[in-house]
Amino acid sequence: MLSASTRDLLKQVSTATLATALFKRGLRNQFIQDVRPLNFKGENMVGPAYTLRYMPAREDLNPISVFLDRAHPQRKAVEECPEGAVFVVDSRKDARAASAGSILVTRLMVRGVAGIVTDGGFRDSPEIGELAIPSYHHRPAAPTNLTVHQAIDINVPIGCGDAPVFPGDIIVGDGEGVIVIPAHLADEIAAEAREMTAFEDFVTEKVREGRSILGLYPATDEQTKIDFAAWRAAKNR
Amino acid sequence: MLSASTRDLLKQVSTATLATALFKRGLRNQFIQDVRPLNFKGENMVGPAYTLRYMPAREDLNPISVFLDRAHPQRKAVEECPEGAVFVVDSRKDARAASAGSILVTRLMVRGVAGIVTDGGFRDSPEIGELAIPSYHHRPAAPTNLTVHQAIDINVPIGCGDAPVFPGDIIVGDGEGVIVIPAHLADEIAAEAREMTAFEDFVTEKVREGRSILGLYPATDEQTKIDFAAWRAAKNR
Amino acid sequence: MLSASTRDLLKQVSTATLATALFKRGLRNQFIQDVRPLNFKGENMVGPAYTLRYMPAREDLNPISVFLDRAHPQRKAVEECPEGAVFVVDSRKDARAASAGSILVTRLMVRGVAGIVTDGGFRDSPEIGELAIPSYHHRPAAPTNLTVHQAIDINVPIGCGDAPVFPGDIIVGDGEGVIVIPAHLADEIAAEAREMTAFEDFVTEKVREGRSILGLYPATDEQTKIDFAAWRAAKNR
Amino acid sequence: MLSASTRDLLKQVSTATLATALFKRGLRNQFIQDVRPLNFKGENMVGPAYTLRYMPAREDLNPISVFLDRAHPQRKAVEECPEGAVFVVDSRKDARAASAGSILVTRLMVRGVAGIVTDGGFRDSPEIGELAIPSYHHRPAAPTNLTVHQAIDINVPIGCGDAPVFPGDIIVGDGEGVIVIPAHLADEIAAEAREMTAFEDFVTEKVREGRSILGLYPATDEQTKIDFAAWRAAKNR
Amino acid sequence: MLSASTRDLLKQVSTATLATALFKRGLRNQFIQDVRPLNFKGENMVGPAYTLRYMPAREDLNPISVFLDRAHPQRKAVEECPEGAVFVVDSRKDARAASAGSILVTRLMVRGVAGIVTDGGFRDSPEIGELAIPSYHHRPAAPTNLTVHQAIDINVPIGCGDAPVFPGDIIVGDGEGVIVIPAHLADEIAAEAREMTAFEDFVTEKVREGRSILGLYPATDEQTKIDFAAWRAAKNR
Amino acid sequence: MLSASTRDLLKQVSTATLATALFKRGLRNQFIQDVRPLNFKGENMVGPAYTLRYMPAREDLNPISVFLDRAHPQRKAVEECPEGAVFVVDSRKDARAASAGSILVTRLMVRGVAGIVTDGGFRDSPEIGELAIPSYHHRPAAPTNLTVHQAIDINVPIGCGDAPVFPGDIIVGDGEGVIVIPAHLADEIAAEAREMTAFEDFVTEKVREGRSILGLYPATDEQTKIDFAAWRAAKNR
Repeated sequence: MLSASTRDLLKQVSTATLATALFKRGLRNQFIQDVRPLNFKGENMVGPAYTLRYMPAREDLNPISVFLDRAHPQRKAVEECPEGAVFVVDSRKDARAASAGSILVTRLMVRGVAGIVTDGGFRDSPEIGELAIPSYHHRPAAPTNLTVHQAIDINVPIGCGDAPVFPGDIIVGDGEGVIVIPAHLADEIAAEAREMTAFEDFVTEKVREGRSILGLYPATDEQTKIDFAAWRAAKNR
Repeated sequence: MLSASTRDLLKQVSTATLATALFKRGLRNQFIQDVRPLNFKGENMVGPAYTLRYMPAREDLNPISVFLDRAHPQRKAVEECPEGAVFVVDSRKDARAASAGSILVTRLMVRGVAGIVTDGGFRDSPEIGELAIPSYHHRPAAPTNLTVHQAIDINVPIGCGDAPVFPGDIIVGDGEGVIVIPAHLADEIAAEAREMTAFEDFVTEKVREGRSILGLYPATDEQTKIDFAAWRAAKNR
Repeated sequence: MLSASTRDLLKQVSTATLATALFKRGLRNQFIQDVRPLNFKGENMVGPAYTLRYMPAREDLNPISVFLDRAHPQRKAVEECPEGAVFVVDSRKDARAASAGSILVTRLMVRGVAGIVTDGGFRDSPEIGELAIPSYHHRPAAPTNLTVHQAIDINVPIGCGDAPVFPGDIIVGDGEGVIVIPAHLADEIAAEAREMTAFEDFVTEKVREGRSILGLYPATDEQTKIDFAAWRAAKNR
Repeated sequence: MLSASTRDLLKQVSTATLATALFKRGLRNQFIQDVRPLNFKGENMVGPAYTLRYMPAREDLNPISVFLDRAHPQRKAVEECPEGAVFVVDSRKDARAASAGSILVTRLMVRGVAGIVTDGGFRDSPEIGELAIPSYHHRPAAPTNLTVHQAIDINVPIGCGDAPVFPGDIIVGDGEGVIVIPAHLADEIAAEAREMTAFEDFVTEKVREGRSILGLYPATDEQTKIDFAAWRAAKNR
Repeated sequence: MLSASTRDLLKQVSTATLATALFKRGLRNQFIQDVRPLNFKGENMVGPAYTLRYMPAREDLNPISVFLDRAHPQRKAVEECPEGAVFVVDSRKDARAASAGSILVTRLMVRGVAGIVTDGGFRDSPEIGELAIPSYHHRPAAPTNLTVHQAIDINVPIGCGDAPVFPGDIIVGDGEGVIVIPAHLADEIAAEAREMTAFEDFVTEKVREGRSILGLYPATDEQTKIDFAAWRAAKNR
Repeated sequence: MLSASTRDLLKQVSTATLATALFKRGLRNQFIQDVRPLNFKGENMVGPAYTLRYMPAREDLNPISVFLDRAHPQRKAVEECPEGAVFVVDSRKDARAASAGSILVTRLMVRGVAGIVTDGGFRDSPEIGELAIPSYHHRPAAPTNLTVHQAIDINVPIGCGDAPVFPGDIIVGDGEGVIVIPAHLADEIAAEAREMTAFEDFVTEKVREGRSILGLYPATDEQTKIDFAAWRAAKNR
């Protein structure tokens, strides 16, 4: 369960800061590699993972007519992904064909889904970039998913961009990319990231003022800690 | 021959829609993989393919002085590519050196060429992105083509981004990428894509209004077909 | 030593033109492959190279606490990189983790460093893209450098994007990418590039006016040389 | 169900011949790409697929102690894979760590499993190459699977070397590689491949005798058909 | 034209030595990258290049029935490749499907062709490895060429493993790989390589006897030159 | 310092076992990725690392004449690498040109060097495979190193096949590949690997006898521990 307060905290921090908090706990592979926002709107994507797994398409099982079946996993997943969740697709890092197109992504948006990520590509990517739902992929891919991918499993553990993703893990996306926070760590990571972000904002301000990073970042000078405490008080953070 | 009406139709549809129309005919590899517009201006690139084939450069055959020869294939091709055609370059997916630069692309623009595509890279890419001619490549590449490529054949069948391209095939580029329509299919694909686009626009509107994709996309509900007919009549499409 | 006049000349020419000047001297691999500007501001990055070399990280040597050491090579390099230099990082073309983040890049900016290039990735890349210092990388990378990289050597000869970089080589970046000019050639390359740029500007103007490239580019027609001389006189170039 | 007669037929034909038989039915991606036998013993591997799916390893879930759990999917799969089946592993084409080692493969051999394939790598590969069980991988990989892989699913549809593999599909391996025959096609493909192999053997003999391939392969000359019929009669094939 | 004496010389030298002789003339990319012998028999492959160019296959143009056409370029090339030539195939470095199989390679062997090279893969590779004709590829590939490749041009300039190959260039293969000697340089390169090989054999003998490489290789010590002259006299080389 | 007893132990264990011992200590990236023995002779390569670092070659600094300089780092390193050490080369995973050839490797052999590893390729690889010195590379590479590589540093920390290598780290190679043991851990890792190897040999014997791996590997059954103790006593291990 993702609490409202943790969700709010995760809206305010960067994937870089989260990556460091995870690194401190020995988790080195939580950043989804080589995906990018189609058009970052300035607000972080945050939500629990709901997953779709693709396998390589076999031609006889993937004619265009498969979508006549309302139980087709891709369509079913789009209709069942919970409001507030992030739809994460394992496309085996293969962007030769699409993971989804603008109609399905629009449907996810209308249904209140928090975002969509694939380690493959989207078709209709210019249209998807205009939608009010965060979206991340590797690169545009016009061909229908059936060309290369067969949707096979819903909400199972997957890989996405070489990162492990379990259903319910908390997914955060910003202008840089997407990171996966194991569900049980979400609250503590969010809290820690807020603290780290306050310190980084303080450091950035001091660096802009001309201070050296030595002793400042990390705060090995005692004075840094004093200054930071004063800054927090002044900024009410 | 690309008729004016087919050209017009292809200006109004997406490479994603065209990819599906081709997929239905068993053609799965017509999307040029991993190229992108330098700066999409909002209007599709459409025209028959005119091709240039590069092979790996041998140093003794590719000093800077080769361009003193007016019959050099790269220069000859730029001067001979027909008005309205799309100049498609087989760079063997190698963007370590340029396929062309802004002067040649400007010349193509002035000569009325409809666009240029390479599965390598352009040099002077920021300038090319400003020109009023659509251009697509893999990534910027400042080194002169002679560094890696030797222009060797004009208007022969080639590969571009793993897609087969025959001279005269109809090339369409949008904000997503570039697709190759076999010449003999251009008219029927264009007509079918117009129909598909009308339906997709209808579906998008309904999805935005909150309708589920089940029964709507594809139109397995009879009501969908009725609604679409009404929509077309109302929209005059 | 980079003279002020050479620096000025290099601000006015493109990496494409420089690549050709280097090619004429037999130097084919000076363009740093597959890096791009985070947000090109319109002015070239120019400066002598100051280098940092990363090796693969061994986990026991790279806990987060290493930054408590003020002599850590990454931090030391950031504080010691000379004003006006370009900070060039050998990240072994591995962007799974960051080469640097916004705080260090801000510090470089404040210290007057001319720019930063890595063949890996930056974290906090959206923030870095806003800074008034040119920056080039392969792709965004949120994870801390310690995840994959260990800073090991300062200001030694390195590879960056398959190009050789010696400390003191002159680095030039534009909207297309980054090129490395061997230190001893900087003055003559800059002078030659200015001449080439004048000619290219002339050619571009003529091509826009409708002239064929044959005889014009290169100037195999005697008339071209005459026209160019007149153009230079008129333009005072 | 794989009948004994089909198994026998598949022991006598090559993956190349099977690939052509599948191609004729529109199945183009059934060859497992980029795996090779550790030490082909001269007899084809044949059996129905039993699958194991790996996902990327998360460090906290994959300490060495996980193997203390007898229900760990990797170990469970090794004990439950049916006699006569081929154990097929989806390692996401990642050979940085092992898919299995010699002890598990020995156990599979002793249990009567027909072979093992991974699109990653084996550890103890020299020992595995000595075992009397066919084995195929991408390349040797000494690190324990936990380093990169987490076993997550048993006997679900997977991808292996970009080929789709459904449990029960018939897997055939020879000195060249491994191919996947959809279960429902196994009998007819086997029968057709036997016929094709007879013809190919005839053709090879004729070509060795000096005959041109034109008219012979394929048999567009009427005489070829007559000769082949005679050859079959003489050879009792 | 490849003279008998040059052919004989090229049988006795290595691709490594030839690569150095070419490097001295500024030719750096003549080694065909990433191909290997299927089963080196101890004697170099030597002959002029006869080329076949593949482009990406379009499905409608590449049904299995295309081979019914005796003029199909692949079959035509196999029948027309001159005796003594090396058949070099441009497969765009794509080994997902075969460049050729054992029947065609057997035909080439019977016809007296000197060898075959592809930067893709062969099917029936175990059988090809047994034939008395040198063969080189990237890796085994069971699927028929039609799956991915369409033969399109015979005996045109091509790329093979990133090396430029012109018809008539002299191709040499040894246990290490394959190199391309521009036709006009074949005699002088062969003569120089013979001299280099004599010296390398002398050096190897001396190194085995315990001499340092300094002063020996290259022969910067005057004594080395004296010793080499004596060695040549004694060895009659 | 590598003691004789540790060296002896490391001769008797596999890189797979060592990888697990390192994994238990949190070291996951010590296996040199994607290198293979040229011709494994049955005895492990063991010795402390002596390193050579290559950077990309700049053409003007790398004519064939550089070897006239006896202080050239490649030649110097070959003459100075200590007896018993393993010569490890950082070739930036680039096998387009050689890291070394047979003459230099012969010299290393004669000088008593324990082995050589590169993440690039060797030239004269068939000859090197015949030498009585263990050698590992990615793939054969006939072109002289000067084509792509410039030797720049001797005995500094490097990367090799994505693994960190510090001078003095203990390098072990077997029929599978090569692993890097941090110097300070060599004794304890060797001792632990001997124990693990005894247990694995026991387990292999039992598995061959038909025992299930459950309870046996790892030894979660008490009986397994008892049996192993008896086996060790009987085998005197």
